[in-house]
Amino acid sequence: MTGRPATSTVHHGSGRVDRDAANALAVARLTAARPVLETVAPAGEVVPGMTPRTVLVSGPPQPWDQYTGGQRRAVIGAALYEGLARDETEAEALLADGTVAVRPSHDHASVGSLTGVCTASMPVAVVRDETSGRRAFCRMNEGADRASLTFGAWDVGVGARLRHVSEVVSPALAEVLDHLGGLALTPIVRRALAMGDDLHSRHKAAAVLLRAAVLDAVLDLSRGRTAERHRALAAYLRSAEYLFLHFVMAACKAAADSASGVPRSSLVTAMNLNGQHFGLRVSGLGDRWLTAPLPPVSTLRGRLYDGRTTDDLEYVGGESLITETVGLGGMAAAAAMPLQDHSAGTPQDMIRLTERMYRITLDEHPEYRIPALAFRGVPCGIDAVRVAETGIVPAIHLGATLREGGHAGAVLFRPPLEPFQQAADLLSTP
Amino acid sequence: MTGRPATSTVHHGSGRVDRDAANALAVARLTAARPVLETVAPAGEVVPGMTPRTVLVSGPPQPWDQYTGGQRRAVIGAALYEGLARDETEAEALLADGTVAVRPSHDHASVGSLTGVCTASMPVAVVRDETSGRRAFCRMNEGADRASLTFGAWDVGVGARLRHVSEVVSPALAEVLDHLGGLALTPIVRRALAMGDDLHSRHKAAAVLLRAAVLDAVLDLSRGRTAERHRALAAYLRSAEYLFLHFVMAACKAAADSASGVPRSSLVTAMNLNGQHFGLRVSGLGDRWLTAPLPPVSTLRGRLYDGRTTDDLEYVGGESLITETVGLGGMAAAAAMPLQDHSAGTPQDMIRLTERMYRITLDEHPEYRIPALAFRGVPCGIDAVRVAETGIVPAIHLGATLREGGHAGAVLFRPPLEPFQQAADLLSTP
Repeated sequence: MTGRPATSTVHHGSGRVDRDAANALAVARLTAARPVLETVAPAGEVVPGMTPRTVLVSGPPQPWDQYTGGQRRAVIGAALYEGLARDETEAEALLADGTVAVRPSHDHASVGSLTGVCTASMPVAVVRDETSGRRAFCRMNEGADRASLTFGAWDVGVGARLRHVSEVVSPALAEVLDHLGGLALTPIVRRALAMGDDLHSRHKAAAVLLRAAVLDAVLDLSRGRTAERHRALAAYLRSAEYLFLHFVMAACKAAADSASGVPRSSLVTAMNLNGQHFGLRVSGLGDRWLTAPLPPVSTLRGRLYDGRTTDDLEYVGGESLITETVGLGGMAAAAAMPLQDHSAGTPQDMIRLTERMYRITLDEHPEYRIPALAFRGVPCGIDAVRVAETGIVPAIHLGATLREGGHAGAVLFRPPLEPFQQAADLLSTP
Repeated sequence: MTGRPATSTVHHGSGRVDRDAANALAVARLTAARPVLETVAPAGEVVPGMTPRTVLVSGPPQPWDQYTGGQRRAVIGAALYEGLARDETEAEALLADGTVAVRPSHDHASVGSLTGVCTASMPVAVVRDETSGRRAFCRMNEGADRASLTFGAWDVGVGARLRHVSEVVSPALAEVLDHLGGLALTPIVRRALAMGDDLHSRHKAAAVLLRAAVLDAVLDLSRGRTAERHRALAAYLRSAEYLFLHFVMAACKAAADSASGVPRSSLVTAMNLNGQHFGLRVSGLGDRWLTAPLPPVSTLRGRLYDGRTTDDLEYVGGESLITETVGLGGMAAAAAMPLQDHSAGTPQDMIRLTERMYRITLDEHPEYRIPALAFRGVPCGIDAVRVAETGIVPAIHLGATLREGGHAGAVLFRPPLEPFQQAADLLSTP
């Protein structure tokens, strides 16, 4: 614990004392996590509860018929890619009768980027928190192309890129990680924060730090052997700017899971979206999702590619906001001045955005520090009760998706207040 | 030209108009430079005027007997390394009678890091400004070890590392650069500025960007062949954090030379030090050095390694402050928040330091921008007349050296005002 004393209002006699102690325990677990990327492997081999007919998705659970737009396209695309159906009609039928099961990622120790779809043959990053021993998973990034299942697009090209990542890139990366004995992620996150990344919408530093580490290992591995797969891996690393996001998402999921299930704690352990709802989990309420409808896409602020406007956007789900639960992304806006046009606006606004977040968080991360704030630790451990009391919601840097599928840019997202209020109410009820 | 109108005081009728036009021309050349790292080659093969018995050094020229301390040790070490003498006594004699010639780097289109010593067999970076066609040179970095000729140290280990860089690393890097057809430096500088580097005291981003680019090329080159020298290059790149400084120094020297010799221009084209004096060149005064004694080392501010204090420091020369002439280093302090403890102190002080520099500069660089200043271009093109008029001297980030030789850390250096006043006086004399 490096932070300030908790200041939540007393609700019910000893309730505050209980909650303060519970939050201290939960946030200590959150900040103690030291994630290591162990390997990359097919989801079916490593993700708990994964079956050949499972499609993981982002967001609080909802019935299949409520999935629309890009996220629905992505689920159907994933089923076709996995060979579970011959065509869209068959896929729709199998999804409708439950033969192909749509499952929330979080219930499988996983987190999904945007649509979050993942099937058994798709490779996932396996990240282990060395402190708690917990593992968490996130599907590999599909590369630089803006059309991808992640962004709600599905066609022959998307399938070919998925297959390349699955059959060529991931085995080569697994070989490298085996050679390295795993890759500690904390030092990369720490360095990247001092190099203008927020580790959610911007990964330019993390990407090149990762690339250099992997290329060094490749060179070490490739003594005297041709290595077509190694060159394919190098090409992928050059283009997949957001690969590290997937690793850091799994890292944050492992940390958040280690802080979950502490009775009475109001620490936020997950935030996510499906196409219609924002979902929240807090430590003391275990796996329960508290939800509220998403704000209109017109309320998102940021700069989009190619002159697109918020009129062109659509929510397709998303769980990369797990990074904000550990103090990265929008919480660390002050570290990521290059993102100003995609976030708060000006450098001063970026500073103010992060400074405001200390009012709703329980600690400052001991490793992840912000040079522009005189090396203060990122605001870590969102307290749902403080959010409810102050009305200050977490600042979230989110990838934006086009209605027709595809990457549209990065934006600042402010989640609805209601789920935080629900959590506070539920925790204050003895 | 992207900057504000010149505001210098009128001295002599049309003098100001002449100078404004001259400065506009000179700074336009400075900002138009687009440096490319062409190759790495022995100084004797590429540096103009280099002979087998030449030792290049940093700083305004002075007689041999005035070289003391670390810079004198480095010159003797370089002569011994080059095989010009059998021992120190013989080296001293040959240097005293001029058989071995100590020459200022700047007169050989070169710049030196700290002591700046360079002999014919030592490899130098060859950087060509694609706009002007000019080439400039800077000796290769000696690697991570704090004991090096650069820092005024000489022993068997220093010699062995120099030989490794000369015989193994540099040929491998030359092969890579040949394969790449040269490496454009502007994009790396641009990206590194958005990643917390000032490109003088901090090169963490530039180093990893360079490393990744070189490793990619190595992988491409090493199809099916063992490549011991490539692994040696990779190891060197991991450790030589300041390698890119040497490239950017040559880049800035080429740019500054292209802006040199414009009659009446008060644009600063070089700043350097030897052990005793600060030296200044301005465009309108050609190759003339204006000098003043260096301020005591006790006036340097910054954080040193291993609990050292300024009492342990000594000036050993230096020309890396060529980076400040293009708006990098201390001029770009606001881009490099991680350096705050080595420079102005607080994040706010870093911002103010750079903001102040716009008062003495002629333009803002069109490529090199500072996210923390809402992407404003770095203050580029120091105007000696404005320095003289305002009393604001350029902010310089300098490597600090120990009295006994070795790297002591990074500091903020403020040069004496007198040479700027001399330049202003000389330029205002018709």
